[in-house]
Amino acid sequence: MTDLVHSAIDDELRAVFADARARADEFGADYAALWESLELQSAGGKRIRPHLVNAAYLGLGGTDRALATRVGVAFEVLHTAFLIHDDVIDRDTVRRGAPNVASRFAGRALARGAGDRASEALGETAAVLAGDLALSLAHREIALLSIDAERRGRLLDILDRAVFVSAAGELADVVHAGSAEPPEVARVLATLEQKTAVYSFECPLTAGAVLAGANEAAVGALARYGRFVGVAFQITDDILGVFGDPATTGKSTTSDLREGKQTALTAHAATTDAWASISARLGDPELDDAGADELRAALLGCGALDAARRLADEYVTLARFELDTAELPESLRTELGDLAGRAAERAR
Amino acid sequence: MTDLVHSAIDDELRAVFADARARADEFGADYAALWESLELQSAGGKRIRPHLVNAAYLGLGGTDRALATRVGVAFEVLHTAFLIHDDVIDRDTVRRGAPNVASRFAGRALARGAGDRASEALGETAAVLAGDLALSLAHREIALLSIDAERRGRLLDILDRAVFVSAAGELADVVHAGSAEPPEVARVLATLEQKTAVYSFECPLTAGAVLAGANEAAVGALARYGRFVGVAFQITDDILGVFGDPATTGKSTTSDLREGKQTALTAHAATTDAWASISARLGDPELDDAGADELRAALLGCGALDAARRLADEYVTLARFELDTAELPESLRTELGDLAGRAAERAR
Repeated sequence: MTDLVHSAIDDELRAVFADARARADEFGADYAALWESLELQSAGGKRIRPHLVNAAYLGLGGTDRALATRVGVAFEVLHTAFLIHDDVIDRDTVRRGAPNVASRFAGRALARGAGDRASEALGETAAVLAGDLALSLAHREIALLSIDAERRGRLLDILDRAVFVSAAGELADVVHAGSAEPPEVARVLATLEQKTAVYSFECPLTAGAVLAGANEAAVGALARYGRFVGVAFQITDDILGVFGDPATTGKSTTSDLREGKQTALTAHAATTDAWASISARLGDPELDDAGADELRAALLGCGALDAARRLADEYVTLARFELDTAELPESLRTELGDLAGRAAERAR
Repeated sequence: MTDLVHSAIDDELRAVFADARARADEFGADYAALWESLELQSAGGKRIRPHLVNAAYLGLGGTDRALATRVGVAFEVLHTAFLIHDDVIDRDTVRRGAPNVASRFAGRALARGAGDRASEALGETAAVLAGDLALSLAHREIALLSIDAERRGRLLDILDRAVFVSAAGELADVVHAGSAEPPEVARVLATLEQKTAVYSFECPLTAGAVLAGANEAAVGALARYGRFVGVAFQITDDILGVFGDPATTGKSTTSDLREGKQTALTAHAATTDAWASISARLGDPELDDAGADELRAALLGCGALDAARRLADEYVTLARFELDTAELPESLRTELGDLAGRAAERAR
């Protein structure tokens, strides 16, 4: 099924962007290039959100694949919008191993002979606007669904929740990243849930369920399952961000340590005697590979890796409990149970 | 009527923000403060967009004031979203004479003992998120309207056009601000139309007209009228930004010169012999009051003020022509004709 979802989503995204690029042409080459950048930025993802919409929708009796695809596209472009604005906030220039929107546009300006400051400003402008356009696309996809007013209203509420809670999580993340307080497990988990689990797991699942006309009990169970499994995925991602194999994950194992990212690992470490020496080096922008190796050894030595793995496992257990106690069709239960297993097992 | 629109809009905005703030509380004091900032930023505007929605809607036979108010609120919060993200792009800290969202949040962080860089980052994060939330509110207000699918679809298309064209204009503005090329009148006018006239005048008017069930000829005439009158207003604003009375406009007459803002004034100056000496000082961030006085005298001397006033008058004439040749109710024609007159007369 995954391949089918993938190709339906890609087809729909291609149609949406082809339409936008055709309209953008009239406004000049820069605006057309902005839409191309936005399309590039939307490509190459794992399409987990559309997959979840489809799994819930088809698993709960939905039959109109085109409808589920449009809702999947809405969550996919919402994700793109958040990634792009996240990069603006973090002043990042690379996304998925390639130059991001800001970096592409800064490069265009430099090539035209603009100065460094003007080029950087253009890059940032392009990224702010590209995120706004992607966010607007997400809203439009849901608003234009040809379904009854009651279901459309509920889907709009789910989309609203996705935006509302993610913004809260993003704000909390930046507030705490700038704070001198040691990270606390409960707060790290709340931020993971708000910043990622709600819009990436809970909302796509509940949107699919509501679209299929599922009962409240099923919608509620999928919401809780989504939050738990989403947190498990994020804890695992954070483990892989420090202890993973860059060849497999495609991600440096130094950058999170350099940024001093607050994770389940650092929150556990903060409860141990090793914290004084760990916190002294965590977040050092000059951290080199040898320093990163030492930090990794210290995190391992104080039990942070084991603690984070246990925490991910607990969230998988909680997610599975929701599946087991809800009245869900067996095939959906199996599919989501498998997904929950994969959430934690990557970090073994 | 204006007062009535004003108070209905204020009531509806208050209700929307009260609901959001109540939901935000659960996510902590920072998120609640973000919504308060957003509400503050939405206060104090002239409510020109809701006024235009109402004028078109009531003038073309609409009777459901609550419906027009919701559409007016959508355009008002869209405007708020654009102002906030415009400030991110321009790195501004003041809006309507008070600290903007970024500045408020940077201040909060500083008060908590965060460093300059971390405080600035939090301010920027808050502004990116506040703009996203306001943009989402605008989409939600239109998507939730209880009207038939055909009219809702058309209103969604109008909102989409507002976002799409404004983004094109904002991008063009930043591209050209960073360019060494002298400004050209045609390009300056196209940017004013795209960046402001479409979302501030055309779209509120056409939204009101479509909501009232007006015929295509009336909708088309109001669209063209809106673009013309919007450009006339912007040319006039740019004149007042250099030659106005700060006590009346509430705006410095030095900052546009310091930024080297490309306007009808500078585009005319670029066609004269005075350009070499004007362009040498325009955009100098160190420009003092004496230098600004000299620049003003040079712009006056080369005929730029007269040329810009004539241009604004021409756009008022074009706008009035649309009103005169369209089949519109007499009261609406009179109201919009008066508005067109005010577009240019402020700069006499």
